Amino acid sequence: MDITMIEAAAERLNGHARRTPLLSSPRLDDLAGRRVLVKAECLQHTGSFKFRGGWSALSALDPQTRARGVLAYSSGNHAQGVAAAARAFGAPAVIVMPSDAPKPKIENTRALGAEVVLYDRGREAREEIGDRLASERGLTLIKPYDELQVIAGQGTCGLEIAAQAAEKGVERADVLVCCGGGGLTAGIALALEARAPGLRVRPVEPEGYDDTARSLAAGVRLGNATEAGGLCDAILTPMPGALTFPITSRLCASGLVVSDDEVLRAMALAFAHLKVVAEPGGAVALAAALFHGEALAGDTVVATISGGNVTPEVFARALALLG
Amino acid sequence: MDITMIEAAAERLNGHARRTPLLSSPRLDDLAGRRVLVKAECLQHTGSFKFRGGWSALSALDPQTRARGVLAYSSGNHAQGVAAAARAFGAPAVIVMPSDAPKPKIENTRALGAEVVLYDRGREAREEIGDRLASERGLTLIKPYDELQVIAGQGTCGLEIAAQAAEKGVERADVLVCCGGGGLTAGIALALEARAPGLRVRPVEPEGYDDTARSLAAGVRLGNATEAGGLCDAILTPMPGALTFPITSRLCASGLVVSDDEVLRAMALAFAHLKVVAEPGGAVALAAALFHGEALAGDTVVATISGGNVTPEVFARALALLG
Repeated sequence: MDITMIEAAAERLNGHARRTPLLSSPRLDDLAGRRVLVKAECLQHTGSFKFRGGWSALSALDPQTRARGVLAYSSGNHAQGVAAAARAFGAPAVIVMPSDAPKPKIENTRALGAEVVLYDRGREAREEIGDRLASERGLTLIKPYDELQVIAGQGTCGLEIAAQAAEKGVERADVLVCCGGGGLTAGIALALEARAPGLRVRPVEPEGYDDTARSLAAGVRLGNATEAGGLCDAILTPMPGALTFPITSRLCASGLVVSDDEVLRAMALAFAHLKVVAEPGGAVALAAALFHGEALAGDTVVATISGGNVTPEVFARALALLG
Repeated sequence: MDITMIEAAAERLNGHARRTPLLSSPRLDDLAGRRVLVKAECLQHTGSFKFRGGWSALSALDPQTRARGVLAYSSGNHAQGVAAAARAFGAPAVIVMPSDAPKPKIENTRALGAEVVLYDRGREAREEIGDRLASERGLTLIKPYDELQVIAGQGTCGLEIAAQAAEKGVERADVLVCCGGGGLTAGIALALEARAPGLRVRPVEPEGYDDTARSLAAGVRLGNATEAGGLCDAILTPMPGALTFPITSRLCASGLVVSDDEVLRAMALAFAHLKVVAEPGGAVALAAALFHGEALAGDTVVATISGGNVTPEVFARALALLG
C-alpha cells in the first residue's frame, strides 16, 4: 500500500472526520526544552483516531456487503470508531470487547447502536471469537490494525500533520505516535514519507508492552509477555501486525518506552496546559516528548494524543499529581 | 462600533489566534433533546477566548504606546490573554488580580512574564488600583470588557461561529454565551447580526450573579449583590458594562441562569463526551444547553465553552458526579 490509498481514504473521510487541531503551550515547551506540537486526536469523533480507520474501512465496502453488517474486536476505541461509522451507514455492528475494558468504552459502544460481545482477555483469543461470529452471521470483519483500509484511514491523520507542520514552518522533527498494533504508526509514517519526508515517526509504548520497540530493534516481530492489566488499555496488543510491521520497520526510527507514572503526569499536563482529555494509551507519546527529551532530535517534536476515552477514576489519579 | 471593527480585529488576529473547533457528540444531543454544537474556546491560546481580546487590543495600540507597557485587572483569563499578547509584542504587562483567583491562573499569568499585583476582592476596587498603577507607570489600561478593541477581538469568535454553523447547514439557532461583563456576548452578537442573522445570542450566567439576565429584563443595568466567592470565578462581575450593555440589550434575547450543580455536571459531560476541559464559568452555556432545553427554541443550539482554566480540585468535584 502507499500514499494513493491514504489520499483516497481522505476523500472518503472528507466532511465526516474532523481535522483535529495541532495544539501547543509555552509551558509544555519549557518543560520539554523544545517546541512541542500536539496532534489532538482525542477531539476526533468517538474520542480517538479510530474513527478514521473505521470510516475508511466501512466506506470502502461495497454497499451490499456493508448492509449485512460488520464485526470488530477492540478494547474500546476501534469499537467506537467502527460502531459510529456503521451507524452512519445504517449497517449493523457487532463488537467483541474484553470484559476488563473501561466501562465508558463499553457503554459508548452500546450507545452507538452496536451489539457488544464480551470475552476474557486472559483466557480467550479475540481473533477466534471474531472469526466465528463473522462466519456465522455473514458479517465483514474490520480488524483493528492489520487491515489495509484501516491503515489508510489512520494515515489521513498523517496527511493533516504534514500540512499543519508546514503551516508552522516545521520541516524536520520527530513525530511521536502512540503505538499498539501499529495502524496509526504505519499510516502516519506512509503519509509523512510522501508529504513531509523531514518528519520521522517514532512509536511510543508503555513499559512492559514495548513489542514494537523491541521488534524494530530486532528486525523481527516479537510479542509481549502479556496483554492484560496495563494502565494503557488502548494500546496493549500481542505483537506488531503482519501488515503494519513491514511499514514501520522500513520507515520508523527507534521506539520509545515510558512508565505509567510518566503517562499519568502527561495526562495531567495536557489537562492543565492544553485543556484536552487524554487517556493513558493516548498520552504515551506526549509523555515521551516531555520526559524523554534526551532521546529526541531537533528543536521541535510532534506528539499525537491518540484518544481521550478514560474513566473519571483514572483521570482523577492523574489530576492528583498536580499541585 | 460595528462589524468592520471585528473584521479588522480578525485581520490582526489571523495567524496568531486559533480557529477553535465546533465540537459535538451524539450523547450530548441525546441528553439535550436537540443538536448541540460546542464552540471550544478553552482550546484557544491561554485556555480562554480572552486571548482574542488581548491580542486585538495590543495590536491596535501604536508601537510607542505599546512599548511602555499595558495593565489589566482580571480574575485570570483576561490576565493571561493580555500577558500572552504583551509577551509576543515584547511589551511589559502588569496584571491586577484578586487574591482569591484560582492558583493556576495566577501562576500561568506569571509564567507568561507578567507582573502580578494581588488585591482583596471584598475590600478593594480593582478599577481604582488599575487606574493608579496605569498613571504612575505610563501603562495603557486594557479593560476586560468595556473596551472597544477588546469587544472587537471577542467578536472574532462570532465570525467563526457564523462560518462554522453555515458549514453545518445551521441557519437558525440560539447561541448560548457564557457572560460576565459582556465582552464576548456583545462581540459575538455583533458578528452574528452581520453574518448570521438567524443565530440569536442568549447570555448565560450562574445563580446569584445574573446581572445581565436581570438587566436585559429590566432594560437598565443592574448589579449583583456580591462578586466574590462563586464557583464561576471567570464571569463574576459587578454589572454589565457601559459599552457592552447597549449592544447586548439591542441584540440579545433573554438571559438564562444555571445552578452550580448544573455547571459541574456540564463540566463532567464535556470531559466524557467532548474530551475538553471546561472551567466552571466556561461551562454555564453548555449547562443551559443540556439542562434548560425548555427555555430554548429550535432543533439546534450552539453553546460556547469560553475557558478551561480550572484547578484539579474543582475538576475532581465535577468528575465525582460521573458514575
